[in-house]
Amino acid sequence: MGKEIASRKEDYSQWYNDLIIKGGLADYSAVRGCMVIKPYGFALWENMRDVLDKMFKDTGHQNAYFPLLVPKSLFEKEEENAEGFAKECAVVTHYRLKVNPEKKGSLMVDPESKLEEELVIRPTSEAIIWNTYKGWIQSYRDLPLLINQWANVVRWEMRTRLFLRTAEFLWQEGHTAHATADEAIAETKQMLDVYATFAEEFMGMPVIKGVKSPNERFAGALDTYCIEALMQDGKALQAGTSHFLGQNFAKAFDVKFSDKENKLDYVWATSWGVSTRLIGALVMAHSDDDGLILPPKLAPIQVVIVPIYKGDEQKKAIDEKVAEIVSELKQRGIKVKYDDNENSRPGWKFAEYELKGVPVRIGIGARDLANSVVEVARRDTKEKKSYPMEGLSDSIVSLLDDIQKSIYNKASAFREQNITKADNWEEFVKLLDEKAGFISAHWNGTGETEDEIKNLTKATIRCIPLNNPQEEGACILTGQPSKERVLFARAY
Amino acid sequence: MGKEIASRKEDYSQWYNDLIIKGGLADYSAVRGCMVIKPYGFALWENMRDVLDKMFKDTGHQNAYFPLLVPKSLFEKEEENAEGFAKECAVVTHYRLKVNPEKKGSLMVDPESKLEEELVIRPTSEAIIWNTYKGWIQSYRDLPLLINQWANVVRWEMRTRLFLRTAEFLWQEGHTAHATADEAIAETKQMLDVYATFAEEFMGMPVIKGVKSPNERFAGALDTYCIEALMQDGKALQAGTSHFLGQNFAKAFDVKFSDKENKLDYVWATSWGVSTRLIGALVMAHSDDDGLILPPKLAPIQVVIVPIYKGDEQKKAIDEKVAEIVSELKQRGIKVKYDDNENSRPGWKFAEYELKGVPVRIGIGARDLANSVVEVARRDTKEKKSYPMEGLSDSIVSLLDDIQKSIYNKASAFREQNITKADNWEEFVKLLDEKAGFISAHWNGTGETEDEIKNLTKATIRCIPLNNPQEEGACILTGQPSKERVLFARAY
Repeated sequence: MGKEIASRKEDYSQWYNDLIIKGGLADYSAVRGCMVIKPYGFALWENMRDVLDKMFKDTGHQNAYFPLLVPKSLFEKEEENAEGFAKECAVVTHYRLKVNPEKKGSLMVDPESKLEEELVIRPTSEAIIWNTYKGWIQSYRDLPLLINQWANVVRWEMRTRLFLRTAEFLWQEGHTAHATADEAIAETKQMLDVYATFAEEFMGMPVIKGVKSPNERFAGALDTYCIEALMQDGKALQAGTSHFLGQNFAKAFDVKFSDKENKLDYVWATSWGVSTRLIGALVMAHSDDDGLILPPKLAPIQVVIVPIYKGDEQKKAIDEKVAEIVSELKQRGIKVKYDDNENSRPGWKFAEYELKGVPVRIGIGARDLANSVVEVARRDTKEKKSYPMEGLSDSIVSLLDDIQKSIYNKASAFREQNITKADNWEEFVKLLDEKAGFISAHWNGTGETEDEIKNLTKATIRCIPLNNPQEEGACILTGQPSKERVLFARAY
Repeated sequence: MGKEIASRKEDYSQWYNDLIIKGGLADYSAVRGCMVIKPYGFALWENMRDVLDKMFKDTGHQNAYFPLLVPKSLFEKEEENAEGFAKECAVVTHYRLKVNPEKKGSLMVDPESKLEEELVIRPTSEAIIWNTYKGWIQSYRDLPLLINQWANVVRWEMRTRLFLRTAEFLWQEGHTAHATADEAIAETKQMLDVYATFAEEFMGMPVIKGVKSPNERFAGALDTYCIEALMQDGKALQAGTSHFLGQNFAKAFDVKFSDKENKLDYVWATSWGVSTRLIGALVMAHSDDDGLILPPKLAPIQVVIVPIYKGDEQKKAIDEKVAEIVSELKQRGIKVKYDDNENSRPGWKFAEYELKGVPVRIGIGARDLANSVVEVARRDTKEKKSYPMEGLSDSIVSLLDDIQKSIYNKASAFREQNITKADNWEEFVKLLDEKAGFISAHWNGTGETEDEIKNLTKATIRCIPLNNPQEEGACILTGQPSKERVLFARAY
């Protein structure tokens, strides 16, 4: 009847793709590694963007827009950052096509339009932004400079997955400049908190706040803070990062300010970002074998109403009642859709909106009308219940609220069950194979050990949690002494 | 005291640049032909975007997102469109940089990363979108398909001007598919009306709705509708276009649908767009020699409050009163800023907010406080008046409303005075040199004549106005018979 979806158990990866494609979030494109974000997926992104944008503005940030293309000479100025991204840069070398004289109706790159200097499509915008900040910052009065940009970026990834890893993706990138290291660190942490609040309160997705090990740091950062989430297959997903960049970019682009005593110093920097990857995380955090489960606070459609009727007369009576309900729900700020499309039957619609993860479905038939009730089905638990029409909007408001909390609690319980301690190598490997999830284990603190663990198991250190308890122990690989556990996982 | 700005009379073009740069809307960038949109300019764009986005959604459109990069083979499928944009395409040929072995700290394009097929950065998205629509449209039930995209595009322009013509710009592009030509034409006209309403009611900028002559049509369109505005220097500016694309793209990308009788046909298409160019138009439509004049409905700051005081005690009393005023104005939905920055004096602030085009300035000093009044200055007329604090928010709401109408009326009167008839070549040339503006004149209807007039005078046909009165006459260049006047102008 509905569209077929793989089950999580059978083929997790196919299940994920089915939800994205058949749920109408995105589509493959003719461009290698790039996707099309379909209207339903884009509406979800708009909701996420609007909430985040407000949180950024409430914490004093302004939006701006910087060029897509970065001259190679600028890009290479901050060496670590440049080398970190060099391997995945799309490069513009020419600025013109011309008619191909040897092939009718075909165009070719005009060799005479070769650029003197190649342009890189931004994989991230530190270079172009810090080159601009040089002209904007002279004195402590110009600080802090708190700017965010919503933009597309391109990273030439070899293995791509819808939303999780695409050659082009949409994101926001905050880039701030401060007079002191302390202020910059406070900003870095503040934005991590913003991301964590967004993930937990809006996406209904619990996250662990932490700091990356040196191997996993952003290229050019002194410290990378992150939020890490756990997916239903036991793999971790980095959902957002906030970087303390120290004075690296200020030095590379010569951005100095004079302080109150007229002393010159380099400014301190942060950058922080989340991307359309969050949609992939959202999908995997809550959905089930029948389709998407979207949190009410972000769902493009929060309530769908489906009429069940025979003949025009019943339909007309239902239409009239539904018009009242819709207007009442809209007044409460609820995004409601009445699907009275005659081309599909109620059963098909039920399956379709389950697939699309609409939190609440209201069914209404002639008998319901007579009894002044409606049938309400919640997507997350699939529970169905008859609700009186009297006070319906109040009931729906509290039901949506309940669903929001409930999916968070479910994800949270799952996450708690899947953080396990491993005290030696055998335990560690066994856990990875049998249970996955986050593994809390000791490590000797070196990049070499981290690399070796990754080579042996594909697991990486996801983060060193903030406020991590200090505890003496022995590195799971080398047995060397360690002062705290860190969280390992296989990750997206 | 304030920042120096060229006068319109002395140097119109410098005046424009001064407003953009010194008014804080945008900045030059290190990338040829690309600009940085600064926070104040971007806030203006966000306001424009939000209004337009609501108008698009209210007319049934949904947003989506398509890839930035277009494979050359797709791009060249609709031949006219491809050739129209080929000369200004940025082309990605490689996907990797590597460390340059011959120059320490420098990167070079990795020749081994050459793409098999070059990718064009979208100059417009018909090709990639119609290639995608092929998979989305099978039956009349899938139509109409009403999609809009907010995106950046790149056109390698040789001569660039801030906002008016930049290599990269931000825009929206609507792309719709319909079952019949009539429906597509109705959509084209509907979106032209949306643009005209936006320009007049929000930007306060009168526009003429018309259709382009064949020479000025969008490459690949059967008809291009446009809105044309008049700038203060007598030059015209195309502010938005809406294209009826016929079945050109459907044929190029093989997009067919089966109608109710199960008959296959190609679908009918439209596309329509406005861009950050509108900010340039807005600046030139209203501003004066003291700076920007922004319409209240789009201004990032609608009201600025400046305290005038001596000593902490006066300041404290003013702060308390202003807190009340700010809260009252915010409750009315007014965007208000209290600038009590101690680093600059009131006179400097007055000049600065005049430059930035804030519609209303409220000055408040100790004596005002004693008399329960404030001094209110409106930016457009520079009129100053004392307003009682009692009922201030009501007064400000109606003042903002009055300013919005007033700048529209002023621009409208200017436009009316600058549409002039020319009945022969001498009149035409004389008008162009001495008065400029729109010149209403007869033309023999051929592209050759249009080209020759352009070569001789740099004037082009801006549009054939909708509902144009029919009138017998003689072409100003050739003397050949003509059935209607068209509007000529030199244009941005």
